[in-house]
Amino acid sequence: MKVKELMDTNFLKVYPDYTVKEVSELMHKKKRYSAPIVDEHDKLMGWVNAIDLLILNDEDKKKEIREYMHSIDKVIVLNENDEAREAVIKIVKYKVVSIPVVNNEGKVVGIVRNCDITKTLAKLYDIPVYKLFKTLQEQLRGITWEELMEAAAIV
Amino acid sequence: MKVKELMDTNFLKVYPDYTVKEVSELMHKKKRYSAPIVDEHDKLMGWVNAIDLLILNDEDKKKEIREYMHSIDKVIVLNENDEAREAVIKIVKYKVVSIPVVNNEGKVVGIVRNCDITKTLAKLYDIPVYKLFKTLQEQLRGITWEELMEAAAIV
Repeated sequence: MKVKELMDTNFLKVYPDYTVKEVSELMHKKKRYSAPIVDEHDKLMGWVNAIDLLILNDEDKKKEIREYMHSIDKVIVLNENDEAREAVIKIVKYKVVSIPVVNNEGKVVGIVRNCDITKTLAKLYDIPVYKLFKTLQEQLRGITWEELMEAAAIV
Repeated sequence: MKVKELMDTNFLKVYPDYTVKEVSELMHKKKRYSAPIVDEHDKLMGWVNAIDLLILNDEDKKKEIREYMHSIDKVIVLNENDEAREAVIKIVKYKVVSIPVVNNEGKVVGIVRNCDITKTLAKLYDIPVYKLFKTLQEQLRGITWEELMEAAAIV
């Protein structure tokens, strides 16, 4: 499975000349905790997190969002052709809520969100593992699922 | 596995008389996107999300957080003795980033965060499934992992 099959393509896109106030309202309206900042060709320029904007006062909120974005060299990024496994590793390693996904031209094409990963992992592993056991049941000659998992845990 | 084995006990605890400004600064400092509001006995009173506070102006930020919290009847809650599976289902169903965990007395004892679930699911399913296969390898008489997963997928 590739990152492109896991990502959310209905994400919030922010341009660098939006004011902090505009971005805050967009995040609130769309219920997004973070968003990529892109240029006029949709190329990734940076990243903005809701909690970075939380501490700004009314004066700061009139400024352009580019002043408060994380610059691209500090942003965790995935390529749409990366293995989905790569997304899980990065989300766990960097403890982030979401990661922007770019194509080979550097254009932002989606966002991988933690909740999409949870959903996919729960589906991918839970159901197939159960099916796997069902397939093997005859060959296992009466071993229960619990006994099997116990055996697996101690290997 | 129970919710108590999955939850983060090092969470941000907020009292109802904290100002919005204080809570915003705590969230920013501790990098938490949400927090439970508790009374003097640590009983859950409500929940606060960073994006709800994003749109408040300097005047609003002087007010007490209780004015902007989600009241307890609208908050998704887990009991520490619930099955971990229950946490996965609720995170996916309600698309939330984290869920407060209470004990039988209604006291908040932890928070289940989406990233903890991702970590645990990745560990629980990925590694044990591989180990499972290793345990079974002899009995499987030369079937490969790929053949096995293919067989499982079509059941």
